[in-house]
Amino acid sequence: MPSFKSSTEITGWPQDVGILAMEVYFPSQYVEQSELETFDGVSQGKYTIGLGQTRMGFCSDREDINSLCLTALSHLMEKTGVGYENIGRLEVGTETIIDKSKSVKTCLMQLFEDSGNTDVEGIDTTNACYGGTAALINAINWVESSSWDGRYAVVVAGDIAVYATGPARPTGGAGAVAMLVGPHAPLIMERGLRGTHMCHVYDFYKPDLSSEYPTVDGKLSIQCYLSALDACYQTFSRKSDSLKESASPPMSLDQLDAVIFHSPFCKLVQKSLARLAFNDFLSTPMDQVSSKYPGLEAFREKKLEDTYFDRDVEKAFMNYSESLFEAKTKPSLCIATQVGNMYTPSVYGGLASFIASNSVENLAGKRVVMFSYGSGLAATMFSLRISEDTGPDSALSNLVASLSDLGVRLEARSKVSPSVFAETMKLRQETHHKAPYAPVGTVEALFPGTWYLTRVDEMHRRQYERRPLTAVYPMSGVAGASTNTVMKEASAMATDMLSHQV
Amino acid sequence: MPSFKSSTEITGWPQDVGILAMEVYFPSQYVEQSELETFDGVSQGKYTIGLGQTRMGFCSDREDINSLCLTALSHLMEKTGVGYENIGRLEVGTETIIDKSKSVKTCLMQLFEDSGNTDVEGIDTTNACYGGTAALINAINWVESSSWDGRYAVVVAGDIAVYATGPARPTGGAGAVAMLVGPHAPLIMERGLRGTHMCHVYDFYKPDLSSEYPTVDGKLSIQCYLSALDACYQTFSRKSDSLKESASPPMSLDQLDAVIFHSPFCKLVQKSLARLAFNDFLSTPMDQVSSKYPGLEAFREKKLEDTYFDRDVEKAFMNYSESLFEAKTKPSLCIATQVGNMYTPSVYGGLASFIASNSVENLAGKRVVMFSYGSGLAATMFSLRISEDTGPDSALSNLVASLSDLGVRLEARSKVSPSVFAETMKLRQETHHKAPYAPVGTVEALFPGTWYLTRVDEMHRRQYERRPLTAVYPMSGVAGASTNTVMKEASAMATDMLSHQV
Repeated sequence: MPSFKSSTEITGWPQDVGILAMEVYFPSQYVEQSELETFDGVSQGKYTIGLGQTRMGFCSDREDINSLCLTALSHLMEKTGVGYENIGRLEVGTETIIDKSKSVKTCLMQLFEDSGNTDVEGIDTTNACYGGTAALINAINWVESSSWDGRYAVVVAGDIAVYATGPARPTGGAGAVAMLVGPHAPLIMERGLRGTHMCHVYDFYKPDLSSEYPTVDGKLSIQCYLSALDACYQTFSRKSDSLKESASPPMSLDQLDAVIFHSPFCKLVQKSLARLAFNDFLSTPMDQVSSKYPGLEAFREKKLEDTYFDRDVEKAFMNYSESLFEAKTKPSLCIATQVGNMYTPSVYGGLASFIASNSVENLAGKRVVMFSYGSGLAATMFSLRISEDTGPDSALSNLVASLSDLGVRLEARSKVSPSVFAETMKLRQETHHKAPYAPVGTVEALFPGTWYLTRVDEMHRRQYERRPLTAVYPMSGVAGASTNTVMKEASAMATDMLSHQV
Repeated sequence: MPSFKSSTEITGWPQDVGILAMEVYFPSQYVEQSELETFDGVSQGKYTIGLGQTRMGFCSDREDINSLCLTALSHLMEKTGVGYENIGRLEVGTETIIDKSKSVKTCLMQLFEDSGNTDVEGIDTTNACYGGTAALINAINWVESSSWDGRYAVVVAGDIAVYATGPARPTGGAGAVAMLVGPHAPLIMERGLRGTHMCHVYDFYKPDLSSEYPTVDGKLSIQCYLSALDACYQTFSRKSDSLKESASPPMSLDQLDAVIFHSPFCKLVQKSLARLAFNDFLSTPMDQVSSKYPGLEAFREKKLEDTYFDRDVEKAFMNYSESLFEAKTKPSLCIATQVGNMYTPSVYGGLASFIASNSVENLAGKRVVMFSYGSGLAATMFSLRISEDTGPDSALSNLVASLSDLGVRLEARSKVSPSVFAETMKLRQETHHKAPYAPVGTVEALFPGTWYLTRVDEMHRRQYERRPLTAVYPMSGVAGASTNTVMKEASAMATDMLSHQV
């Protein structure tokens, strides 16, 4: 078995554990948010400016959580050239539950059948939009633990976000992200540096198990998101400050090159960056406030917990942080505004967007902070260091190349009218969980290489097929370029095949 | 913050990571399986001898997955004296889904509120009866990873197993197990020694989200369980053999002091031990078969994959392994036969039963193999080494003392007639997911210290209260004896408070 576990890694942590490769899948159809505004009879700009959304991806009855994850995992494996026999851990983060017992992970094991590899740990992790982050942390812990046998881990995060007609509907979306995890990664999880905040709230949840739609307390949900952001940033900052060398300055936005957020809608993300600036402001020594934050001194009397809906604070710090937002956060919102809220993959779609919008040289050595939020609630802020190796065959170059077609792929989608979108939602609603059921959505509308549902039998067993992977598929060029790169690197590192590995 | 992370553990794996303490919770009511046979009009012995079941625990509408886990976690924290501020990871394994998005873990965070500790990683993991094992593996990996900050992990596995009227109904059960995980444990996870088998099957699953009942293909489920057992034992044996010193004999049941299985029903567990003996038999060198397995030579022509329902093989190896079963497995079936299938906690209820049935001296140094199975399917075989320290204040002595009341607690339950049981099941079925809803079950029937549901409001938000923890509670004596033992030990080890810990 190939292994990239070196002799120094047998009884300790390997180096630079993190994300080696990524694949983002989004539906091939979208609806224009500006057309949706007209269709829904709301004021122009409500969705596009008020929410910051441009387009929204959606699935017909041909796609479910299993098919989304099958597609993302297939593409990741094809792009990287990593064989299924080289995966030792696979897990799925999702809140799109179509079975209360059987995991999506077990469905993905179909792809492993030809390899004969069934010794693959990991199942599904669930808490709203946080599941993908739990899976990523689990995968990284596995690589650093004695359980690791030198093989790769894969994390798949996927969801279909749909809402009943009404104000929440334009905040839907759908998609899946698959990530290859191991040592010597271009996106390295920073050690000892995570701020987590978990507590019991009913802000957004799905207690009606017969429906795809959530129960949402919109205002509470915003408050929970922002208060979790405050708490995570404070813990993250405290840990960062305790780890830093004495000469270096304490944690603030200055220490971070990019800040990427879970995005229920893009406007909230912009407000969130402003919120971090407000946190920085409140923790700035009093004698430096006037020089660092001229004109904002009056807000020094405010308290974090009183200002979740304080429009003066929000406006002042939105203005203050505008250039910070343009530089550190906006490049991460390409998929979020074009596809919508993908739930668990959202923050990783943000990471992919950020990488795709930059050159290898611009990315090298950068420090990226990620904020993952799941209602209910579970939230973590963590930090990724980007490697400094910019060589043409480096892991970073391969990662950037593999994501460089994101814009082309987003443009290759088909626009659908709001009325067709509404009919599709109605069809999903009426046939959700129906068995037996034969889906009626067109298969031709799907991207090449997409897995789709062909039948649900009378026992609720689901069957899938895959659209042929043709040269037309926008990713094929990139796939060709990077095929086997990760695998070649792994083989080169496999200088120390451990005798006890099986 | 207290920490038991020593200086040698800052950049590597701590010693003896595993289970420090355990708490088992089961319902206070049960139905006699022999009375159920009469009530259901089936032949006498069908449930008691055919399935190997004695009594079955069940919940009224006062208990759900949240309350079960609240109860198990509360008791664990009270027994060990570990403060909530000393927990850095908490996760839940369950397939009793009452919300598709919000995790049970977030509900448990209510117990942390007084401590102010919200920096607690981990959410829910789901795949049928396997979720608790995934959570345990995740917790152990966390302690061995750079993510670990010296605090404890807690794993909670809980489920309510109920079936529609018919042949599967007597295989129900309910309960929860909470486990404290950390280094210097009396039950140590053996490193590099796990056999996993995961694949895509529809043997048992829950696609009807509006019902508590699963969809089961009974025969396929048995075949999947036994084939997963074969595959896990083969991988486990291969890894064990590659790790062993050259002089020691290859893996066989002789190398194991106890074998504990996930127990859908006890008869299957007895068949499973026979199956391992059959595996050993098939891998024995031909020249040793006659001496080791006299009279069984003719079965050498059989193949594993052809014998899942071969009555001749089953009978021959049940006979052969009868004394092995009595010694290595039967002591683990106390809760399984008295409570029924608890799903995710089942195999850990087996572990608790095994410990409770032995003295500290008998347990010290023993090697226990665990087989965890979840339909769909996900299965892992792993090994626990029991520590050799038998001192009166040792972690092992405390663990054994804390579980010594299991028999008393099982006997303290109330027997309920089959007709009342059937009415309770009917009530659960008719009110499952109803909102608003006020539960009607008696609170007085619950054990002291049990959390119970008081109300589901119109927004499906659930509220709980707790029965007072009185001296009548059968565990209180033991709790007194072991209070603070784990914490005292941890404090003693906290010789090296890491400056970067927060």
